[in-house]
Amino acid sequence: MDGLIAIGIDIGGTKIAVATVAAAGCILGRSTMPTQAERGFDDGLRRIVALLDRLMAETGCSRRALAAIGIGCAGPVDPIRGTIDNPYTLPTWDGVNIVEPLQAEYGVRVVLENDADAAAMGEVWLGAGQGGRVVVMITIGTGIGGGIIIDGQVYRGIEGTHPEIGHHSIDPTGPACYCGMRGCWESLASGPALVAAVSERAPGRPSGPLTGAGVIAEARAGDPIAQAAVTRAAEATAMALFNLTNLYAPDVIVLGGGVMEAYDLFEPVIRQTLSRNTMAPVDRIAVRRAELGSDAGVVGAACLALDHAQLPAVRRAPLPPR
Amino acid sequence: MDGLIAIGIDIGGTKIAVATVAAAGCILGRSTMPTQAERGFDDGLRRIVALLDRLMAETGCSRRALAAIGIGCAGPVDPIRGTIDNPYTLPTWDGVNIVEPLQAEYGVRVVLENDADAAAMGEVWLGAGQGGRVVVMITIGTGIGGGIIIDGQVYRGIEGTHPEIGHHSIDPTGPACYCGMRGCWESLASGPALVAAVSERAPGRPSGPLTGAGVIAEARAGDPIAQAAVTRAAEATAMALFNLTNLYAPDVIVLGGGVMEAYDLFEPVIRQTLSRNTMAPVDRIAVRRAELGSDAGVVGAACLALDHAQLPAVRRAPLPPR
Repeated sequence: MDGLIAIGIDIGGTKIAVATVAAAGCILGRSTMPTQAERGFDDGLRRIVALLDRLMAETGCSRRALAAIGIGCAGPVDPIRGTIDNPYTLPTWDGVNIVEPLQAEYGVRVVLENDADAAAMGEVWLGAGQGGRVVVMITIGTGIGGGIIIDGQVYRGIEGTHPEIGHHSIDPTGPACYCGMRGCWESLASGPALVAAVSERAPGRPSGPLTGAGVIAEARAGDPIAQAAVTRAAEATAMALFNLTNLYAPDVIVLGGGVMEAYDLFEPVIRQTLSRNTMAPVDRIAVRRAELGSDAGVVGAACLALDHAQLPAVRRAPLPPR
Repeated sequence: MDGLIAIGIDIGGTKIAVATVAAAGCILGRSTMPTQAERGFDDGLRRIVALLDRLMAETGCSRRALAAIGIGCAGPVDPIRGTIDNPYTLPTWDGVNIVEPLQAEYGVRVVLENDADAAAMGEVWLGAGQGGRVVVMITIGTGIGGGIIIDGQVYRGIEGTHPEIGHHSIDPTGPACYCGMRGCWESLASGPALVAAVSERAPGRPSGPLTGAGVIAEARAGDPIAQAAVTRAAEATAMALFNLTNLYAPDVIVLGGGVMEAYDLFEPVIRQTLSRNTMAPVDRIAVRRAELGSDAGVVGAACLALDHAQLPAVRRAPLPPR
């Protein structure tokens, strides 16, 4: 059973990552390609199949050994119908069913999940979320997204809805967000929020196009405006996590994504704010940096696929205490 | 099976309410007494047993017909150990086990639950939460508490922790709260928050001791300071519900408690704020006023007891669409 193999696919707006993953919990091989969604879904599907065939050949995984395929995809997606409904970052991939054609091609169970949920599942299976009954994983990058895993299952809201944890507001006087609110966490602590905070305070800055990673690098180099931007993002994140400890009382909060390159700068602010919380057992709620990096999505998608394929629930195997 | 009877007990700081509830879903009889926790737990337990015996006699419920007892109690409580740990509103009832002595006395299964969770279960079974898969019930009164019911089960966090939904912050410049944060929902919209908002703006007000209900009455009578206080509480509540739609994406949000006497004043503000949310299917998330009033706690406690007594899960019976 540990020899069984699943494929995990992680579809983002820029690139598609794939991996063959053994049920024993290790990655056998991985590959990527540019998404290029604008070329149309049929073209994308053909390229995905070619990528998977190549990966399986390279890792010596025959079609017979393949147990299931899991897909984590930038949402909105409909995990029940198997459709992608994301005109925002996957133009032309709107209302397309990705599950059925892959199921037909490979003759195995295929499952689709929001990419934040897949990443959360990956960290619960093999990363920083191991051993937690209620695990909230937050990805802070271009946006802020979150996945909640309860008793090894993805939490779903109304009609299977993926919750949008990054769009809870913590400051009614904060920046306006496309979500319809002011001062949501994403608008205060994402990569673009770091850039906006610097641009506001130094509009004539002569440097090239600024990125979140660039702001973090400048803060580390001692630039006071960049440091103020990082501090604002860290304070917003600390306040958001205070809220999450009261709203979910999770066992573990895992923080990943590009902005968590600055985890060491955020951590003291988070610890100090959480220590003030008298309502939740914050001394026993673990806050950890994600461990799987960009592998979290493919690992989690594979885990979901293995579970949905009715194999014994691999991710619920006893895990060593941390 | 519908003839089976459970007792629901709702223990608050001021009074204890009890009811005999049939599994068919109706209250057969109810009674109350003052809590007087300061007289000690042994005294309280004796008075509870006397109250239950009287209630059972009055409603013709023999000890043989009694299937189970459920208790909803002002938290913190430990539903797993069966202990009350509430020195705040139940002085002297700290660390006491209420489950074991009642189990010994009546020879039936006894379950203990946080009162907010019991009330939520009551509304899901027989009130405004009927038919919802994910139901969040919020009680806005002296404090703001919430219970989350998922697939008919009480949501529990780390080590069984009850989440403290009322203590998520929505305004970092808001009033300081005992929870350790500024501007949490409770500090902006509870009964005492209404009173504080009026006192701040009219410190020399000659009226007697102000209550939340008093502020609401004055707002209805046209007093502009009271109206401003109610508006601030409604805006805070609307923003908190915006957050909850993104954080839980529930099917139903039920609003109860004394301050919801002003539900008609809050509702337009809530609707307008939620309609701006582009991230959650807010047109399909129902926001409803609680229907069971002060019966929610005893009904929910009885429901939990019936379920825990391993009877068929009464609350999951098909319910008429609303």
